[in-house]
Amino acid sequence: MSVAAHIRRINVTRRYASAVVHNGTINLVEVADDETLGFAEQVKQCLHQVESTLALASSDKHHLLQVLIYVKHLSDVPVLNEIWDSWVPEGHAPVRACVQANLVNEKFLVEFVVSAAVKL
Amino acid sequence: MSVAAHIRRINVTRRYASAVVHNGTINLVEVADDETLGFAEQVKQCLHQVESTLALASSDKHHLLQVLIYVKHLSDVPVLNEIWDSWVPEGHAPVRACVQANLVNEKFLVEFVVSAAVKL
Amino acid sequence: MSVAAHIRRINVTRRYASAVVHNGTINLVEVADDETLGFAEQVKQCLHQVESTLALASSDKHHLLQVLIYVKHLSDVPVLNEIWDSWVPEGHAPVRACVQANLVNEKFLVEFVVSAAVKL
Repeated sequence: MSVAAHIRRINVTRRYASAVVHNGTINLVEVADDETLGFAEQVKQCLHQVESTLALASSDKHHLLQVLIYVKHLSDVPVLNEIWDSWVPEGHAPVRACVQANLVNEKFLVEFVVSAAVKL
Repeated sequence: MSVAAHIRRINVTRRYASAVVHNGTINLVEVADDETLGFAEQVKQCLHQVESTLALASSDKHHLLQVLIYVKHLSDVPVLNEIWDSWVPEGHAPVRACVQANLVNEKFLVEFVVSAAVKL
Repeated sequence: MSVAAHIRRINVTRRYASAVVHNGTINLVEVADDETLGFAEQVKQCLHQVESTLALASSDKHHLLQVLIYVKHLSDVPVLNEIWDSWVPEGHAPVRACVQANLVNEKFLVEFVVSAAVKL
């Protein structure tokens, strides 16, 4: 008889979990908790939230595997890159893709889809 | 000598597989089989197809890890959320991102990119 | 005490890695090295780069798991499909999603987000 695989869900609501841990990997999605912020502040808040969520699963920004970034306005990418470059630990950069997309809440200016390794 | 990793491909065509199972995880992409349907019906059909495909790999909607949803029209998101919320098993919601994107077939109104854990 | 999970990063810059290998899977993102090329040539170059990067991690195009393709112009999809279909090894097609998205560099016409299994 098959049994449930071990999955740990963090902060589960009716609609989504903040993060899901399975098989040594954590997946998470972040938009800024405060949607009224400008672009740079939304990016900083998202990255702070990423760190907080990773910490709940024994991971951190040195263990990032892949990050997909959706930006509402491509003209914001230089600001994103400046904040990103100073946030990612040197030598530990993940695979990264960044594309333009309109997000579900019109005030959201950036969204991060992250996978990271969990410390053993 | 290195040997091929174990990969199970489900319903492989020349262009893509319906699902791929590797290392305890199943990845799959669904658009509605019937592209003539309206938005709500496309969502319901996609979610039904997700369940059918997961079942082929000893998984189910209690084991969802991450779901990326592309919607053609952001105005459809409230309808998506209503159907989604009643479909996802309470306490088992996956990480979810939802963004606007134009899809390859102009009749497609929604597309799901899903990963789930396979039961052991 | 928890210890770092084993992660192998390939061609790490300040901003991103060309590829990251973890837990039997390689993730990578490719845009054409030569952004001045037309669409068909960008696709061919990307797929060549995918093969080169996979080879660095003991993987190859027979081990593709999932490929997300962002195209700038949906009108280019038929050309993409023709090149793709002749590139993917028959019987080894991955899960694939393809959507329209504007990319960070206006000359980029296509971007590939790839995961593949690493040979054991």
